Amino acid sequence: MRTLLVLLVLVVGLPAAAQTDPLPSWNEGPAKQAILGFVRATTEKRSPQYVPPEQRIATFDQDGTLWVEQPLYTQLIFALDRVKALAPQHPEWKTQEPFKTILSGDPKALETLTVQDIERVVAVTSTGMTVEAFNTLVTSWFATAKQPRFGRPYLQLVYQPMLELLRYLRANGYKTYIVTGGGQDFVRVYSEQVYGVPPEQVMGTAGKTQYGYQNGQPVLIKLPEVLLVDDKTGKPEGIHLLIGRKPKAAFGNSDGDQQMLEWAQASGGAPLMMLVHHDDAEREYAYGPASRIGTFSDALMAEAKKRGWTVISMKKDWKRIFPFEEK
Amino acid sequence: MRTLLVLLVLVVGLPAAAQTDPLPSWNEGPAKQAILGFVRATTEKRSPQYVPPEQRIATFDQDGTLWVEQPLYTQLIFALDRVKALAPQHPEWKTQEPFKTILSGDPKALETLTVQDIERVVAVTSTGMTVEAFNTLVTSWFATAKQPRFGRPYLQLVYQPMLELLRYLRANGYKTYIVTGGGQDFVRVYSEQVYGVPPEQVMGTAGKTQYGYQNGQPVLIKLPEVLLVDDKTGKPEGIHLLIGRKPKAAFGNSDGDQQMLEWAQASGGAPLMMLVHHDDAEREYAYGPASRIGTFSDALMAEAKKRGWTVISMKKDWKRIFPFEEK
Repeated sequence: MRTLLVLLVLVVGLPAAAQTDPLPSWNEGPAKQAILGFVRATTEKRSPQYVPPEQRIATFDQDGTLWVEQPLYTQLIFALDRVKALAPQHPEWKTQEPFKTILSGDPKALETLTVQDIERVVAVTSTGMTVEAFNTLVTSWFATAKQPRFGRPYLQLVYQPMLELLRYLRANGYKTYIVTGGGQDFVRVYSEQVYGVPPEQVMGTAGKTQYGYQNGQPVLIKLPEVLLVDDKTGKPEGIHLLIGRKPKAAFGNSDGDQQMLEWAQASGGAPLMMLVHHDDAEREYAYGPASRIGTFSDALMAEAKKRGWTVISMKKDWKRIFPFEEK
Repeated sequence: MRTLLVLLVLVVGLPAAAQTDPLPSWNEGPAKQAILGFVRATTEKRSPQYVPPEQRIATFDQDGTLWVEQPLYTQLIFALDRVKALAPQHPEWKTQEPFKTILSGDPKALETLTVQDIERVVAVTSTGMTVEAFNTLVTSWFATAKQPRFGRPYLQLVYQPMLELLRYLRANGYKTYIVTGGGQDFVRVYSEQVYGVPPEQVMGTAGKTQYGYQNGQPVLIKLPEVLLVDDKTGKPEGIHLLIGRKPKAAFGNSDGDQQMLEWAQASGGAPLMMLVHHDDAEREYAYGPASRIGTFSDALMAEAKKRGWTVISMKKDWKRIFPFEEK
C-alpha cells in the first residue's frame, strides 16, 4: 500500500508543493528577486551560469546575519556570565581588570572593555578544559540564559527569513556553511539544531587544542592560543582552510564580512553577495556606522553599491523577523 | 516510456545488483568481515550500534593507506623536482645545504635529509605564491611525473581495495575524509578526481595563508608558516578543527595514525579501526618497523592487538592492489 502511494506521488508529482513560495517571510522586492534569480541561474542545467553540484557552496556570517548580535555578541555574554560564575574561586578578580569591571555589573562600564580585554576573558572562561566539558558548559548556559530585550532564550533569536534562505539553498544542492568571527567550538554546539548546519560546516575563530589522555581516555584540551581569527581577511583564510574553494554565495552584515563577499565574487559566474542592514529599531535594532558591535560603515555601503552587492533592509525586505512572531 | 522503466525498477527492485560484492578486490577473511560487519552494525536501523547518518564520519590517512608512499612520499618527490626546476634561478644552491645534496641527484644522499631539511624544501617550493599558482604547479607535475618502480603516473598508484572501501562507505551514508600528514593544498588538487573526496573533506598539514589583492583581484598567498602538522597528535587535533566530531571509522598504516585510531575508538558504539600492513614485496613493498617512511613499529602492532584494531595484510587480504592490474 505504501509502495503504491509512493508510486502515485512519483507519477502525479506534487504541483502544489512545487509552487509554494520558498521564502514566505521575504517581501517581494529586489532582495528576494536576487535570491530567486541566483538559484535559477546556477542550478538550471541550460543556464550559462550553471554551477555543478560539488561547487555549490554558500557561506553565512552568524552574528547580525543569522541571529541577533545586540546589545552584545551572545558568546561575549556567555563569557561574562562565566566570569561571574567563576568569581568565588578567584578572589583576586575583585581588584584585577578587566574582571573588576565585569563583576561591577555596570553595563556602561562594559563598553570600556578593549578587544584585548575580551580576548583575555574568552581565553580564561573557554580554555583549559576538554572540548566536551566546554560543550556541556555552553549547552547548560543556553538552557537558562535569556536575551534582555526580548526575554527569550538566545537560540530563539534567529532570523526566520535567513532560516528559509538556508533551507532553500540546501534544497537546491548548496552546502551551507557558517563562517563566523565567533568561536568555532561555541557555534558548533547548536548550529545543527538551530540552523541545520552540521559542525563540519562551521568555520569560526579557532583556538589550538592539545591531544592527551585523562583516565586512560583520549581527550582534546582547549588551549588559550589562537589558531585563526575568522574575521575580515581571516574569513577567506578560514574558508580556504575549511573548504578549499571559493563560495558561490556569501551573506554578511558588517565590515568584518567584506573580504568574504569579495572572495565569493571572485568565484566567477553569477555569484550572490548580500548584506543584512539593521534598520528596524521597532522589530529588532537599528545600527550602522557608529555601532561598535556589527559596524556597517559608510565605506562598506559604498563598496556594496560599487560591486553590485545586495543590501537587505530588515525593515522593508522582511515580513517577519523571528520564528516566534505571529504569522 | 522512461518513467515506466523507472517505475518498473522501483517496483521489481534490483536483486542482482543488491547481491553484488561491494568489495570485490578483498579476499574473504577477517579484514573484509570487519568492514561488512561494521557497516551492518552501524547502518541497520534495528542494530543496537546504529549510527544516525549525520554522525557517519570515516577518516583515511593517505600515504601508505590509500596510495603508494615508497620509495619516498609523492609530495616530497614533487618538492625535490621543484628544487631542480628552480635551481637555475638559485645559483647559491650549488653550495647551500640541503639544496646541494638534492641537486647532486644521489638517491643515497637523499636519505641523509633531516625533517628540518624537508620542511625547508617544502616551504621554499610551495609557498610565496597564490593557492591557484600552487594548484597549477601540482597539476602540471602530475601530468608528466612517473613513479620509478611502476613507471606509471602517481595518480594511478592508488589501492583498488581502498577505492572500493571508500565507495562502499559512501554508499552507506558515510562521509569519507582524508586526514593526511601531507599538505592539505597538495592533496586537495586531486582528491576529488582520484578518491571521490571533495576538497572540503581533506585535512592535512596546513600552512598559513594571507589574503590580499593582485591586479585588483583578491588572492590568498601561501605563507611559509605552519598552522597545523597533521600527524600523530595533530590528526585528532586536525579532525576537531575540520570536522568537530569523532570519526566512527579510521584507517591508517603507520605510527603517525595511532592517535587518529584512538580518537575513532573513543567515539563509542562499534567503531572500526584498521591498519594497512605493507607485507607484499612482490606486488608492492614490504616494510615495517625499520622503514623511515611509513614506520609501522612493533609498539603499534602490539597496540593494535591490545585494542582490537584490524591489521590488513596486503598480501593475504587484497586480491588486487592497483586499478590497472588485470582482474
